[in-house]
Amino acid sequence: MVRTYRESGVDIGEAERAVERIARAAATTVTPEVLGGIGGFGSLFRFDPELHPDPILVSSTDGVGTKLKVAIALGRHDTIGVDLVNACVNDIIVSGATPLFFLDYLAVGELRADVVEEIVGGVAAGCAAAGIPLVGGETAQMPDLYRGADYDLAGFIVGVVARADLIDGSRVSAGDALIGISSSGLHTNGYSLARRVLAEGTWESPMPGGEGTIGDALLVPHRSYLDDLRVLRRALREAGSDIHALAHVTGGGWEGNVPRTLPAGLGVDVRTGAWPIPPIFSLIQSRADIEDEEMMRTFNVGIGMTAVIAEDDVELALGAIDGAHHLGRVVPVDEGEPRVRFS
Amino acid sequence: MVRTYRESGVDIGEAERAVERIARAAATTVTPEVLGGIGGFGSLFRFDPELHPDPILVSSTDGVGTKLKVAIALGRHDTIGVDLVNACVNDIIVSGATPLFFLDYLAVGELRADVVEEIVGGVAAGCAAAGIPLVGGETAQMPDLYRGADYDLAGFIVGVVARADLIDGSRVSAGDALIGISSSGLHTNGYSLARRVLAEGTWESPMPGGEGTIGDALLVPHRSYLDDLRVLRRALREAGSDIHALAHVTGGGWEGNVPRTLPAGLGVDVRTGAWPIPPIFSLIQSRADIEDEEMMRTFNVGIGMTAVIAEDDVELALGAIDGAHHLGRVVPVDEGEPRVRFS
Repeated sequence: MVRTYRESGVDIGEAERAVERIARAAATTVTPEVLGGIGGFGSLFRFDPELHPDPILVSSTDGVGTKLKVAIALGRHDTIGVDLVNACVNDIIVSGATPLFFLDYLAVGELRADVVEEIVGGVAAGCAAAGIPLVGGETAQMPDLYRGADYDLAGFIVGVVARADLIDGSRVSAGDALIGISSSGLHTNGYSLARRVLAEGTWESPMPGGEGTIGDALLVPHRSYLDDLRVLRRALREAGSDIHALAHVTGGGWEGNVPRTLPAGLGVDVRTGAWPIPPIFSLIQSRADIEDEEMMRTFNVGIGMTAVIAEDDVELALGAIDGAHHLGRVVPVDEGEPRVRFS
Repeated sequence: MVRTYRESGVDIGEAERAVERIARAAATTVTPEVLGGIGGFGSLFRFDPELHPDPILVSSTDGVGTKLKVAIALGRHDTIGVDLVNACVNDIIVSGATPLFFLDYLAVGELRADVVEEIVGGVAAGCAAAGIPLVGGETAQMPDLYRGADYDLAGFIVGVVARADLIDGSRVSAGDALIGISSSGLHTNGYSLARRVLAEGTWESPMPGGEGTIGDALLVPHRSYLDDLRVLRRALREAGSDIHALAHVTGGGWEGNVPRTLPAGLGVDVRTGAWPIPPIFSLIQSRADIEDEEMMRTFNVGIGMTAVIAEDDVELALGAIDGAHHLGRVVPVDEGEPRVRFS
């Protein structure tokens, strides 16, 4: 008969070791706004209204999808946390927000402090790169929900934008230009399909047309566009202009994301071939003979962030940031017509 | 050969139906601070610094542990979201914070819009009860990570406290009183042990010494102490006093939580028998012959929130809130000695 919590599959001692390592990782991200105290039930972050007049708090939560299954199968847990942070960062910077702080939720079957350390080390690295503190988190042992080495990981981010700086698509008009910034790979979307097409047995094989293995290509972290968008916005504002709309190309691809940020009655006309398609997408498409439309609905296919800007600002924008491409333009679209057209 | 995202186990159509129902549930929680726009990549919440001078943002993330497995086995998903919200609310109100907004992360194997609606309906009900908006969330389909009807659920809350109102344990001194407020049951801790002791086959049986079934008793939602603590603090402040420390009794029980909020060198001396022990705890203990110490380390055993107040305020406090009990007092403790003693 089970008579203790430990016998029921929950290891409090290993949990304490994990918490120590999490604390060490989080400590590398601390900023002056972080306050200690009250035993960590809640995380304290001093908010300075003088730095952020008329503030709007912008928050988001995200996971990393079944990219986790690749990390778990390959036993490489040190970048999945970077994916998590960047997925969340990109979701709030599209409204013009500056990230403030981050929390993570990690649920495991069997708790191993060394694996937790790798995972949360990646989260901390992502936070440090974004200049924000990892202020808190939860590590849950759920022995009957997660099998073997399986785990799930979710992140929460809070940022802030002054109301006057909010990017909300309201300045978009027909004739504006659409530019896009290259993705680093699949980011964190479409892995349920990608893992079926590129079966686990192939992950140690060399990546056709790329570097390293197929597993390496599958695990490349989700790119953060924080610095790119800061540089782009500064350059445009110095020229008396601004970004009109931003879209983070995540689940649902271009079709599912770009129109969300455009006023009603507008869509985009995109020139096929206007951007390079990374080898991982070509490999997936060719291995399973997937149609172009399905590729574009499921994956970012090489562009992880799109921006709508004035046509006159295109040259300035392409010069300001690396990996930017002029994709097409904003056009009027009749109701019921597709809002993303490729020509 | 799998050639579409849908064939890989991800159902975008069902996801869209789920999103509609989530939006309906979230709409019931909207407050004037919530702003729409920018396609929902990030959630916008207007923060008014005039209402919250010298603000500290207090955040927390939590899950509901394997209480989920009870909800899943019984097919009752409408209260697990209430558990989630209240677990998070209680984590931030112990520092004196007022909740501002909430986000949820839901990960499923097979997506069923009706189940998602039940789950998120509970989250929305919890938010509405706390007076805060459910501003955003993520619903992830992860067909290879979650089996059958399994899912996981995490929550994320942000609140605010003026620096002058922060409750941080610094006013605690030896001789203060410890009071506790009754829990509603197991809350969201210790389920891996509870489910081993009270096997799934017994959940439809009548609850000995209680009402309804054992399953009912296992699923009673985590109580929120938001209103109780508001009333308690107002009563004490009107009398020129205040709360000295608060602890949310979660994983690790009293020993793992009460000392976290006390200054070094102090502990609590608790009178056994000072509070009623709900039938669910007696049932678990007697069925598996679990030692008292293990019970207190794993469960809240009837008290979900403790408060340290001045000895002179005890009568006022017990009169101000229902279900409050005078548990004992704060005492000096030598290094290496247990900081929670039962006598």
